[in-house]
Amino acid sequence: MSLANHFTLLGQGGHARLGMLATPHGVVRTPAFMPVGTAGAMKGIHWRDIRDAGADIVLGNTYHLMLRPGAERIAALGGLQKFTGWNGPMLTDSGGFQVMSLAQLRKVTEQGVTFRSHIDGATLDLTPERAIEVQLLFGSDIAMQLDECVRLPASREDIERAMLLSIRWAERCRRAFENAPQGHMLFGIAQGGDVPHLRRESTRALVDIGFHGYAIGGLAVGEPQEVMLAMIEEVAPLLPQDCPRYLMGVGTPDDILEAVARGIDMFDCVLPTRNGRHGHAFTRRGPINLRNARHADDPRPLDEESSWPAARDYSRAYLHHLVKSGEALGAMLLSEINIAYFQSLMGGIREAVASGTFASFSERTRAGWAAGDLLPR
Amino acid sequence: MSLANHFTLLGQGGHARLGMLATPHGVVRTPAFMPVGTAGAMKGIHWRDIRDAGADIVLGNTYHLMLRPGAERIAALGGLQKFTGWNGPMLTDSGGFQVMSLAQLRKVTEQGVTFRSHIDGATLDLTPERAIEVQLLFGSDIAMQLDECVRLPASREDIERAMLLSIRWAERCRRAFENAPQGHMLFGIAQGGDVPHLRRESTRALVDIGFHGYAIGGLAVGEPQEVMLAMIEEVAPLLPQDCPRYLMGVGTPDDILEAVARGIDMFDCVLPTRNGRHGHAFTRRGPINLRNARHADDPRPLDEESSWPAARDYSRAYLHHLVKSGEALGAMLLSEINIAYFQSLMGGIREAVASGTFASFSERTRAGWAAGDLLPR
Repeated sequence: MSLANHFTLLGQGGHARLGMLATPHGVVRTPAFMPVGTAGAMKGIHWRDIRDAGADIVLGNTYHLMLRPGAERIAALGGLQKFTGWNGPMLTDSGGFQVMSLAQLRKVTEQGVTFRSHIDGATLDLTPERAIEVQLLFGSDIAMQLDECVRLPASREDIERAMLLSIRWAERCRRAFENAPQGHMLFGIAQGGDVPHLRRESTRALVDIGFHGYAIGGLAVGEPQEVMLAMIEEVAPLLPQDCPRYLMGVGTPDDILEAVARGIDMFDCVLPTRNGRHGHAFTRRGPINLRNARHADDPRPLDEESSWPAARDYSRAYLHHLVKSGEALGAMLLSEINIAYFQSLMGGIREAVASGTFASFSERTRAGWAAGDLLPR
Repeated sequence: MSLANHFTLLGQGGHARLGMLATPHGVVRTPAFMPVGTAGAMKGIHWRDIRDAGADIVLGNTYHLMLRPGAERIAALGGLQKFTGWNGPMLTDSGGFQVMSLAQLRKVTEQGVTFRSHIDGATLDLTPERAIEVQLLFGSDIAMQLDECVRLPASREDIERAMLLSIRWAERCRRAFENAPQGHMLFGIAQGGDVPHLRRESTRALVDIGFHGYAIGGLAVGEPQEVMLAMIEEVAPLLPQDCPRYLMGVGTPDDILEAVARGIDMFDCVLPTRNGRHGHAFTRRGPINLRNARHADDPRPLDEESSWPAARDYSRAYLHHLVKSGEALGAMLLSEINIAYFQSLMGGIREAVASGTFASFSERTRAGWAAGDLLPR
């Protein structure tokens, strides 16, 4: 059974793609970076700033939201967008990844996964059918299939077993999604660890089942960047051109450039907000650690040419002071500065692909990071 | 020696006063509530929101700022306003109160107070002269004299000794302020605990010395409200009509109404931000504890008639979820909602005094709090 197509490929430069994904809550320009709002909120950032920074779409974590406040409650309150006040497109993961990383006493069977909540110890079941039901209760624009993600390094047997289970779960998710409201989308997730032929097998099986979009899961879990990129090169050529491709949990600005060059359209990562909370800023000139004492007397802004006011208006000395003093405002400002940096990077990528200059854009961007922050005071 | 007068009394209704205080960084409408930005930042609130909420002036804590990042460093970076990015009027306390409450091994002598920093244990001296020097380095629009504030209950002897010492320090601060730049102001602080004749003696001595404004210190430190109000009634009639009067560290919305009715013009308190961080909202219908489970399914906003967007746009259910989940956004939203409530209260007070309706405004406001939050869902 074929699915309605909501993705438009607008252009290509090498393997890099420019596109547009229509969702019930608005259009997503791709390549897109999705800030992560784990429990229905961005950590330390107002929703209005997420939008102003240029994000079209955000990601919510099903695991957290199903435990608290609960899927049925969110549905009764009008869905995730109404509940949170973020009125744009939202993708939710299936909960599987966090069940593996956060929950206690998890047990994976053919049927699904049983686990104990890390919040109150309650025992819960997450099946492919429930993962879809929960995401439909949320009203997610894009739902993800339930999968089993193994941590690398893992044995080939474990990787294959989890990949095959994920395919069977993909089929069940696809069936459970049949009656989803018009315009909502379901993405399958390719697994297979760092084993090329398993990655290819997984991808072909997913494409046979048929999804609105395809994710590559189980990467950015500690493996070297070249392994990740090699796996993208196995998977991407097998995916339909007219569907969006999403590399889950990635990544650094450099990861993003490399993955876009290999045909990826969508990303999500906690890096901008997590690093912001730890005093790290992403800038055109590479990362800056504001905890470092060398910033204490520095009146310069983080980046006088940034499009984001806080990166221009506050001195490094002030940001250093806020970080050292543990002031919430320090984490708030650096988180929004980082989100804005990632979004401006994506905007630059989109413009470059549109104008056929993606390769030189990447080169220039990397040169900026490498030049570092050695400008005169 | 008389001081330039920067305060204009615009009107009076009973003892309640409407005024305007001109500072180097702009005009403060009084009665005014000053949000507290302890260490050069509002906890969890962007400066733009402080301004948008209607605050004309904020308070900074000298004790925190002199320890970190340091007064000389702030001066080298262009002063507190340039450093923090808050470009409006700023009042700083003298550091005395926090030396008493936060520092270790403090020792008070005629000369000043010696203490150990609660941050790194360094031994430091704070004299009246240094307290003024530090505040001038900050570029504070309004500096406060160094005083000794005793905790109540205290013996009459202790209260009198500290009050007399504070008077001698007031004289030294006044001398140290002689060469302050044009337009900057120094306020004296009346002490005397809960002893009426000591309060009067302190006030008369300060007025003899002559200050740009007069504060009432050493209250709101645990005594019953009626004691605080009785002390205001001792002090206020002795103060010059044409100078601003500042009740330090106060307080609840009800404290503010009562103190305005007794002729107070300025207030500061951490209540809106501290309570916001703990899940408490101030509203027209009284305080609301968002931790309470009764809000979990409540789609209503905190106050559909609030002038502050976050109080209208987010459901109680969402705020409850954020508070329960420990999401930073919960503290951020409730802190700004509370600051906005306090500022709208001050705006209401000013309008009421201007139109000669302060008494009925107070009555109506109290009736709103008392009616509580019993509207139909």
